[in-house]
Amino acid sequence: MANIVILGAGVMGSALASVAATHVSNNVTLIGSPLDNEITQSINHNRHHPTLRVDIADNITCFAEADLPERVMQSVDIVVIGVSSPGVSWAVDKIKQFNLSPTCIALVTKGLVSTDDPHSPPLTYADALSSELDADKLLGIAGPCIARELALGMPTFVTFAATDLALATQVRDVFQTDTYRISVHPDFVGLEACAALKNFYCIGVSAMLGAWQIEGQIAKNPVAALFNQAVNEMNIVCNWIRNGADPGEGSTNYPGWSNVAFDLPGMGDLHVTVGGGRNSKLGTLLGQRHKLSEIVQGPMKGVTVEGLDTGRQLLRAFDSAIASRSLHSDQLPLTTAILESIASDSFFEFDFKGFCN
Amino acid sequence: MANIVILGAGVMGSALASVAATHVSNNVTLIGSPLDNEITQSINHNRHHPTLRVDIADNITCFAEADLPERVMQSVDIVVIGVSSPGVSWAVDKIKQFNLSPTCIALVTKGLVSTDDPHSPPLTYADALSSELDADKLLGIAGPCIARELALGMPTFVTFAATDLALATQVRDVFQTDTYRISVHPDFVGLEACAALKNFYCIGVSAMLGAWQIEGQIAKNPVAALFNQAVNEMNIVCNWIRNGADPGEGSTNYPGWSNVAFDLPGMGDLHVTVGGGRNSKLGTLLGQRHKLSEIVQGPMKGVTVEGLDTGRQLLRAFDSAIASRSLHSDQLPLTTAILESIASDSFFEFDFKGFCN
Repeated sequence: MANIVILGAGVMGSALASVAATHVSNNVTLIGSPLDNEITQSINHNRHHPTLRVDIADNITCFAEADLPERVMQSVDIVVIGVSSPGVSWAVDKIKQFNLSPTCIALVTKGLVSTDDPHSPPLTYADALSSELDADKLLGIAGPCIARELALGMPTFVTFAATDLALATQVRDVFQTDTYRISVHPDFVGLEACAALKNFYCIGVSAMLGAWQIEGQIAKNPVAALFNQAVNEMNIVCNWIRNGADPGEGSTNYPGWSNVAFDLPGMGDLHVTVGGGRNSKLGTLLGQRHKLSEIVQGPMKGVTVEGLDTGRQLLRAFDSAIASRSLHSDQLPLTTAILESIASDSFFEFDFKGFCN
Repeated sequence: MANIVILGAGVMGSALASVAATHVSNNVTLIGSPLDNEITQSINHNRHHPTLRVDIADNITCFAEADLPERVMQSVDIVVIGVSSPGVSWAVDKIKQFNLSPTCIALVTKGLVSTDDPHSPPLTYADALSSELDADKLLGIAGPCIARELALGMPTFVTFAATDLALATQVRDVFQTDTYRISVHPDFVGLEACAALKNFYCIGVSAMLGAWQIEGQIAKNPVAALFNQAVNEMNIVCNWIRNGADPGEGSTNYPGWSNVAFDLPGMGDLHVTVGGGRNSKLGTLLGQRHKLSEIVQGPMKGVTVEGLDTGRQLLRAFDSAIASRSLHSDQLPLTTAILESIASDSFFEFDFKGFCN
């Protein structure tokens, strides 16, 4: 049994609450941020989650932040930061405000943060938070996981990563169900990097959904070719972020390399991300030769596209990394093309001749 | 310029002929097997390929086997074995009959062949042919490549593999176009193993398309989870076939391992294979709880399903490999489940609890 507090009552936080509450011995509390008031009201009114569109189990206790009794923040074993990126500072504030000292702080939020040094790779949120929170307690969650499917009990595989593998194993036992299957991995930062990067690469792969058609049907070869390319480039960029150093020859056999890009946090999650969601929608529109600014001021106005934010963080250090040969542009034609589309406010066109010259 | 003879005028052989003929300096001859008579007649009548449903360029010379003039089989630089598996022996016979001695014999045909030894992994077609043909000249072609899309100029990436990398590079230069982009690799047998195995794993991944739905829509998490699992298991089984030995701990960093499963011949081709074609149709029906025998005697009667044939070849050695610990069943839950479905003539049901115990 564990006392689990989930900060953020959006779709992903609430779906994870549903998983945790499958184990009736767990004590699960879902806490809405100031942006989640409609959700927490709805759950407490009739147990229905309006954006996830599922009913929330009776053994999940739900509070709006403003109504939070002090007692529920005592003896917390596991805190899940379940907000999307704009809510991270709110979640960190709550951990500090209530002096929470859990065994584990699990991160669902993904993203990259630029450093002041234009020559350094961006940090993952995880790295950025490790100075504010106890780094040894941080745990990353990644893998193919559409929140609504999770809440409805569709099976999936995910990875829990923590530098301390014993912690990851312990927390797995609290969350794992018959359909939510969890592998553990020690590469916490690599997993967090992939979790952010997959949204970025999703834009480029999804552009193929918009760019190539035969008799009104989407052509499959270009999508698969760029999917494969995306995973291979994600591996290189992930290791650059992890190691902050020369990621070598682009081989997965490079000493010290991690393979998370070729597993659930990279390949697996990218598979589910292409063809659904905001990143894929942006990519598809870019592939249909709409300019980036036309999209974000038009059909996607006001929508947070995490892969676009990730691309902007990558942009700041990318040219410098190419110039210093920390990264090699001939290995990264897709990365380069997505970044160029963002930097030059253009539509997305991939020059296939950039591969295998 | 190269003299290229393509044996087999089916969809894949003809699509590759179209690619080769993009270079007007190439001299491309397409030769129909005795099963291709309708196709060669149609091409020579009005240049239309009836199964590929595209027009064939005028600079491709097309013959039915029976009308083949001796002169076209002289000074052949590259032979492409472009038939599906039942046609391989015909193609090999032609090479012998005309004493062809090309620089390169490129294989499009994929499959596995059991050995007499029940303890040995099956051979790839490539290995089986290397005793009949000059092994140094064999070249494998794999990657995401739906034939009709190829013939219509949709872009893709593929890999050419030959033990002699210089040969692969030389042949790449003959075939590569602006949209048919080719990487080269020395792991010929690994590529051939993946090319066969991807059809087998496609059955298991596609079963998820039939098994899990939400409000009439296919759930995406189970498909992505098993896609990821399939690539990881393909890597293990590929290396077992390549090395005929203990493939170790399942890490891609294992010395001597090849990464082709995590690249175009494995991951990339599996991506395009799931959701289209015969293997995927069989898998989807198995996932909808139809028994194998009901499918192959019913809606798919008379249809060659290459992944099913590959599974039958794997079956003969699999139990022995598990018993001798050359393979480890806890690393291969998906492989085991597909093989069980074939061996026991059942529908396909994947127990997600088999992952991460």
